[in-house]
This record gives sequence, C-alpha cells and structure tokens, in this order.
Amino acid sequence: MFPKNTWYVACTPDEIEGKPLGRKVCNEAIVFYRQADGSPAAVEDFCPHRGAPLSLGYVSDGKLVCGYHGLEMGCDGKAVAMPGQRVRGFPCIKSYATVERHGFIWVWPGDKDQADPALIPDLHWAHDPEWAYGGGYYHVRCDYRLMIDNLMDLTHETYVHSTSIGQKEIDETPCTTKVEGDHVITSRFMNELPEAPPFWKLALRGHGLPDDQRVDRWQICHFNPPTHVMIEVGVALAGHGGYDAPADKKVYAIVVDFITPETETSHHYFWGMARHFKPQDPALTVAIREGQRKVFGEDLQMLERQQANLSTWPERKLLMLNIDAGGVQSRRVIDRVLAAERSASADRLAAASTAEMAK
Amino acid sequence: MFPKNTWYVACTPDEIEGKPLGRKVCNEAIVFYRQADGSPAAVEDFCPHRGAPLSLGYVSDGKLVCGYHGLEMGCDGKAVAMPGQRVRGFPCIKSYATVERHGFIWVWPGDKDQADPALIPDLHWAHDPEWAYGGGYYHVRCDYRLMIDNLMDLTHETYVHSTSIGQKEIDETPCTTKVEGDHVITSRFMNELPEAPPFWKLALRGHGLPDDQRVDRWQICHFNPPTHVMIEVGVALAGHGGYDAPADKKVYAIVVDFITPETETSHHYFWGMARHFKPQDPALTVAIREGQRKVFGEDLQMLERQQANLSTWPERKLLMLNIDAGGVQSRRVIDRVLAAERSASADRLAAASTAEMAK
Amino acid sequence: MFPKNTWYVACTPDEIEGKPLGRKVCNEAIVFYRQADGSPAAVEDFCPHRGAPLSLGYVSDGKLVCGYHGLEMGCDGKAVAMPGQRVRGFPCIKSYATVERHGFIWVWPGDKDQADPALIPDLHWAHDPEWAYGGGYYHVRCDYRLMIDNLMDLTHETYVHSTSIGQKEIDETPCTTKVEGDHVITSRFMNELPEAPPFWKLALRGHGLPDDQRVDRWQICHFNPPTHVMIEVGVALAGHGGYDAPADKKVYAIVVDFITPETETSHHYFWGMARHFKPQDPALTVAIREGQRKVFGEDLQMLERQQANLSTWPERKLLMLNIDAGGVQSRRVIDRVLAAERSASADRLAAASTAEMAK
Repeated sequence: MFPKNTWYVACTPDEIEGKPLGRKVCNEAIVFYRQADGSPAAVEDFCPHRGAPLSLGYVSDGKLVCGYHGLEMGCDGKAVAMPGQRVRGFPCIKSYATVERHGFIWVWPGDKDQADPALIPDLHWAHDPEWAYGGGYYHVRCDYRLMIDNLMDLTHETYVHSTSIGQKEIDETPCTTKVEGDHVITSRFMNELPEAPPFWKLALRGHGLPDDQRVDRWQICHFNPPTHVMIEVGVALAGHGGYDAPADKKVYAIVVDFITPETETSHHYFWGMARHFKPQDPALTVAIREGQRKVFGEDLQMLERQQANLSTWPERKLLMLNIDAGGVQSRRVIDRVLAAERSASADRLAAASTAEMAK
Repeated sequence: MFPKNTWYVACTPDEIEGKPLGRKVCNEAIVFYRQADGSPAAVEDFCPHRGAPLSLGYVSDGKLVCGYHGLEMGCDGKAVAMPGQRVRGFPCIKSYATVERHGFIWVWPGDKDQADPALIPDLHWAHDPEWAYGGGYYHVRCDYRLMIDNLMDLTHETYVHSTSIGQKEIDETPCTTKVEGDHVITSRFMNELPEAPPFWKLALRGHGLPDDQRVDRWQICHFNPPTHVMIEVGVALAGHGGYDAPADKKVYAIVVDFITPETETSHHYFWGMARHFKPQDPALTVAIREGQRKVFGEDLQMLERQQANLSTWPERKLLMLNIDAGGVQSRRVIDRVLAAERSASADRLAAASTAEMAK
Repeated sequence: MFPKNTWYVACTPDEIEGKPLGRKVCNEAIVFYRQADGSPAAVEDFCPHRGAPLSLGYVSDGKLVCGYHGLEMGCDGKAVAMPGQRVRGFPCIKSYATVERHGFIWVWPGDKDQADPALIPDLHWAHDPEWAYGGGYYHVRCDYRLMIDNLMDLTHETYVHSTSIGQKEIDETPCTTKVEGDHVITSRFMNELPEAPPFWKLALRGHGLPDDQRVDRWQICHFNPPTHVMIEVGVALAGHGGYDAPADKKVYAIVVDFITPETETSHHYFWGMARHFKPQDPALTVAIREGQRKVFGEDLQMLERQQANLSTWPERKLLMLNIDAGGVQSRRVIDRVLAAERSASADRLAAASTAEMAK
C-alpha cells in the first residue's frame, strides 16, 4: 500500500548517464533514460515486440533502443521505429511523468495526467552555495513504512548507532511530536551535553570549532508525504542558544531521506546530508558520506529482520509508545493520502461514466 | 508444454565418463550412465530403497550403484542386487530409452515403447572427415521456445552480438520463411557486403582466404521438431555465386542447436558448430568453440530477463512480425506435434479400454 | 511433525557466551541467552515493541536488551524496563523452559508447565573423568527423521564413508533390532576382521594398541525419544571378548547425536564422540572431532538431496528392509509419543472445559 499519484525520487543523474536504468517503483517496472535534450524519460521496461526488458538496451542520440531486435521506443511509450518494420500499429506501453530537479530524477508512478512538477518539494539547500550535499543509495528489503518509523524515532540511535551518532542522552530526553496538516514534526532538544558524539566531533572540527566542550544538540524530524523525511540535526557550543545559536557557534545540517517503495516489502533508500558548514570542502563531503553510509548500513539488518518477523506474525499488533508518535502520525498521513487517492479515483470513474451516459 | 515422445539430446559422452549424471529432461529426473558394453542407460534418479538420488552413487563395472546403501540398479529400472537383501519384490523405477549417436547421448523422455532410434536425426557432418565439430553447453532459465525464437530470427545478431557476428546488413536485409511439412526454413542472403564481420574474418583466414574483401553472406535457419535448429551459415568472396560458390571460395558451416526442455521455464542448450573448412585443425575448433561460447553467452541474460518479464505479464500478447515468422511457424509445428501426441495417447487409452472390454 | 513437550538440545554453552543466540526449534523462533546467575533463559525472538528480533540485541549484566530501542526483556517474556517508558501494560511474549546440563543448553519448546528437568537424559560420560567428549554442529536441510534413519542403519558407512569408517564387512554382517519400551536398539557385531578401518586405527594407536591386527568391531545404536541416538562403537583386539574385552584390549566410545527439529524439513544436528580411552589427551579430542566433522559432512549432501527427492515424490512409499528396522521402529516410537502428546492435549482441554462448566 503506497500512494502512486505523487512524486518519488527514482534515481540520481549518474545512474542514467550514457545508459538506461531499469528500476521498479511502486510495483511498476520502469526504464529510465536521458533524452537528446537532456530531459529524463521513463517508460515501462517491456518491449512490445517480444517482451525483452528495454533496460538491457542502449541509448543512442537520446533514443531508447531495445537491445534484442532494435526497436526504438519513444518517451511516450509508442514505438518510433524498427529496422524493416512499420511500427504504427504496435501496442503502446505505459509512460511515466519524470522530472530532473534538485539533483534527483523524480518519477510519478501513477496517473501521468495528474503529474504536476510544482508538487515536487522545494529543496532550497540544493541550490544554495552556502550548503553542500552528499548522499548514497541502499536497496532495503522491508516495507517503506518501517524505514519511516526508524527515521521518525531517533531513540534507536542510542542502540543501533552507539559508536557513531548514538548517545545515552537521546533516549533519556523526551521528544515531542506535532502534526501540521500533512506535516509531522518530532523534535528532541538535548542541552548541556558533556560532549558531542563522534560524528559531531568530526563536524565541529571540520567547522573549526573545539570538539571537547559541552554542547546543545537537536534533532527535528520532518515527515512530508508521500515518504520524505528531512531531519534537522546539529550541535552548538553550549550557552549560545542551541538551535538558534549563530552560525559560527554551531554545526547545522539536514539529514535527507527519500524512501521510494519498490514492492510491498522492499524499497529504495536515497540518503544523504545537506550541511550548512564548510560547503566548499569536497573531502569533508566524502568523509561525511562514507560516515553516513556506515551508519545507515547499521540499520539494514535490523529493518530486514524486523520485516521478516512481521511477515511471520502478521496478526501481531505493534506497540505505539510516545517515542513512536512520529511514525504513527506519519502512517496516519499516508493513510489519509491513500484514502484521498482512492476517493479521487472513484470520482473520476463516476465522472467518466456520467459523461459516457450523456453522449 | 513440450513433446515427450521424441528424441532430445540429453548430454555429451564426456558427461557420463566414469560417473553417473543426474539431469532433468521434460520434468523427468533422470540419471544417465554408461553400461559395461559401452551403451548408455537412463533410469529415474530415485533409489526405490530410501529415495536417495542415484546420481550421487557410482558406476562399477557398468553397473549403477546407489551411494547410500549399495543398491545396484538395472538399466530397466529393476533393482539387480543389494548386499544382504533379496531385491525381487522391490518396486521398479522408470527407465528411459537412450541411444548414443552422432557424438551425443539421446533420450526419449516419454513412452519407452514408442522410442525408435531411426527417428534420431541424421547428422551427416558428424561422420564426414571433411567436417569438424566443436560445441558446448549452457543451462538457460527460460522456456525452450524463447531460444527457438531467438535462433529462427537472426536480426538479433545486429544488437546482441554487435561485436562478433552482428552487422547492420542483417536487419536491413529481408528474410523469407517457408514451411515444408514440419520443417521450417528462414533464409537471409546478403550480397556484396563491404566486409565480413569479425567471426567470419577469422574463418576466412583459417581457410586461407583474404579477410578484407567484399563478400556474400547467408543464414539459412532450419527448424525441425521437436526443438532442433540447424543454421547454415557462411560467407563467400563476392562474385563467385554466394551460397553456391565453390568450396575454395567460401567458408561454410552449420550452427548446431539442440534445445532440451528441463522444466516449463528452463532448458538445456547444446550449441556448437560443424564446419566444412580446415577440419583437421583442432586449434581452430577450439578458437571457434570459445568464440561461440562468448556469443551464445551474450544471449543468456536477454533470454532469462525476457522470461522474467513474460512471467510477470503472462496476459500480454507478443508481436509477430515478418522477422518473427520463423519462430511463429516453429511454434505452430510444435503445437501440431503436441496435439498429435495427445491424440495418439487418447487413441491408445481407447484401444486399451476396448481390448479390456473384449476379454 | 515433531514432539514439542520434550527436551531438545538447543545449543552449546559457547553459543550464548556474551551474546544472545537466535535459533528456531520445532518452528518456534527463540532467543537464548545467559542470565546474571549463570542460568540460561529462552524467550520468543520478537520484541513486543516493534517486532525486532531480540537476538540482534545484547546481554548486559545478564539482562536481554533489544538492539533497536533498548527494551529490556525478562526471562518470563514480560518486559522489565525501557528508557522513558512504563512497561507494565506491554504484551508478553512466550518464554520457554531451558536448562544447562551435561555440557548442553536444553529447551522444551512446548508447554512450559510440563517441563520437568528430571526428564533430561542422564549422560554419565559428561561427568566422568575417565571419559572425554568433543563435538560440533551442522545445520541440515532435511526432515529430522531422515537423520535418525541414517544413524540407526550404519550399512551406509560402507558407501558414504568408504574412506574413513566404512568397510565391506558392515553391510555383509546382519544386524538385529529390538525394542524395549521406547528404546530401540540395533546391534551389529563383526568378529575377526582382518584389520580396523582408518578411524579406528587412529583410535587404537591413540590408546597405545597395535593397529595392524585382527579386531572385533561393534556398533550398538540406541534410539530414545524424542530424537536422541547414542551409538556404542569400538574395536577390540581379536580373541579378547570383543565388546566385553578388558579396557586395555579395546577402544570404546559413544557416538553422540542430538537431532533437534528446526522446521518440517530442516534440523539442527549436534554430533560428537564420548570416548573411554585417553581422556586426558586434548589433541586426540581435536583429531577425533575434526575426523567426525569430515565424516558427518559426507552425509549432508546425501540427506539433503534425499529430502529434495521425497518432497518431489511425496506419495512414494519407501522400502522397509531389515537394515531399516532401527529407523522404522524409531519412527513408530515417535508416532506413539506424538499420539500421546495429542491425547494429553485433548485431555487438558476437556478438563479445562469441565472446570469452566463447574463454575
């Protein structure tokens, strides 16, 4: 169960550089490629000739060519040409709305007509020279909602990430969750910590600040539908206002999490960090990215084994504690989005039926 | 769906040298071995004692011995002996008609009584000193008919095998398909090509001919039931009559393809080349075989992913273009063979029932 | 189908040293760990908070802590504590009776109330300084009863273990099987063998006896429910009374086999040897254990492929020869135990129902 009439991150630009990419999104098997004008395109990964996956083909002058018998597929799912053949009568395949923006390729796996690029979230940091971004990808074999739960409840850091970003104070400090429309916010402010955990010591040093002093630390998790989680994170030298401290007394960043359902029990996880300190330091970008890769890798076994347990005992109800409020509220938003999607679909069907009868 | 009352290639002689071989053919789990008189034998891969696979056993003086408790199995599926036991009352297992001929071990996976060795195809090149043969094996996870389609439509060479035997002229030259009884023939003649593709340059040089001249090229694909595809291939120096050119102006060979169903979605692929030039050159045999191994290996991913797509969308109809005529006609022949097999089976049942009533 | 109200070996003490162990026994997913007082504990491998496997957590001061969010689980399946939470109302998970005895951790996967430690078999050799024990573990993908068959019919040694403990005389010498209550005994005595097989030559030398003389050899397989097989094995210098020879004329040992069902088609196999010669020689213990590891490893492929064949042909009846009598009788005992378990369960239900009505 995932919203389909919405934008998801499909891939990063490097994944379609010079070749097509086959990737399943929301149970849709899609091939992504870059056209001659530079814009991305996305069609079903199924050649209408003999069913070969188009992603095994190649891109020539921005045209997608089947690697089996040379059928050239258009970005609208209609065959354009094939050696020695007239393709006009060939059956069409699905095409998908896709847009490149903010350093990602986005896809709308549902009804193409409803795809409005204005609905793609605005990522200000992606275009601001005072910010730098680095990130990566994991394929995760669990329901995308387990990943949202994970990111909206950071008390797990104390346990899963005890050697990097975890510290005892996280699960000792209460968090608060509030919901503003479809926006869920879970915040935790930890003040006067005796020291920063290892990852933030690295960041402090990177920003030219001492790493052995008392700090204030914050984690503000933002969920927005369908599945995006942005976490404002940082530490400030104690006594300077914490989250509101001036830029030269704190290190401030956003943990970026785009969670794209693949199937009911697997998803694509695009993780990264946008930081608001030392943006012109590519070595720091690499160091942070590799640190994150290790940290997020620690979650994978837990999430995949959790999924296995839940698949074994589908009837067992999970607890919903205060620390789980972020995930619980996010799931409620998703449920509302799904209900709205079903309702809109029923309305369109009814309207179509009325129009038909009026003829 | 595959014909069962027919001969298939089961294995090559080296695969049963000194040991039994377990292999599934048309969903029948079979163990093949060589008897004391040198002839092959084939029985179910199931020891009637405790169900162990006989293929984990050994062959002693031409006798198949179970590797678990020493039961000796006869070639007719009746236990012959077992230490300390009387085996007369042991249940029988199935036995299969099997014959060694033309350098292959053949098996008839259906009704043994109908197995007539005279129905094994005649491979003249296997016994002619003016010809040489080399070949190999691939296990392929797709319906055997997808491999037949592949071999009866060589336009795919332009795309899948672009660096070895593919060339643009193949999919620019129309092919013609004709059906003579159960024999399907798809032919393509390409004349006055500016040069031969890499594989044929190797062959021309091997035959002592220049490799940089204009050539005529031909591909004549022969399908015969149940699943055999023989492709006459070659190039001649241009202006000497093409396919009919004298032997010293052309290189001529037969691509040999024995396609043995394993299950509904997998098969054994015995590929090779019988060549009518430089037969006494074993190094050339090796070079050609390794070239073919690479070429046919290029098909595997495409075929297996095509199968995955077709399994995902079983209701989608594939196109049947003129280039697909060879495969389409071959499938019609297979369907006729299957219908005849069902009809004969029904006739035998009716006859048996009548005989029973007449008693 | 396996008895559940009975003791099985769950693991060895080293497997729960300093960390929890997740292992499925009789289809129950269980996490084992050692408590502060040194005693083992066993609860379901499912955190009631969010379904994470507790076996991915850790043990701190003898307390089992979930590795996801820090829930502390009690040995009775009730949550003890969780940072920032009141756990009183948390749902319970199953707990299991578990006992450390004779060098193994035992578990009772059924009804905890019926678990009586007095029912754990008495392994005298585990506490006798004149004996030494060494052993290991294999995970085997076959029905646990196929392993019992294997161990209760040692004629397979001639074939499966021809280079270590097998010898022709085994399957040439008849065995006898008797049943005493639930205890099945299959015996084979081989007298005046020209020499001992390789494994026993090693043992003879280890015991300071010549390895090139005629020997008497014996194998006495004892099955006891639910699934334990103990095999008295040994050789004596010929002419000294065989099995009854004085200790300085023979090497005598017990092959120890604890077979713990995991699922219907897989089991945990704890194998080892308790020997009554040279007990103070740790190097000999290692040599024997590594020899056994190799020998029992030879069975695995046969057993797993046998299971695959039986799963393919579930309707086929296996033969029950005289050599199979040990396995056949052991299966009858298991069937009786299962029937008694079902009957007792029905009785308890009826009694509970009567008590309810009497209220």
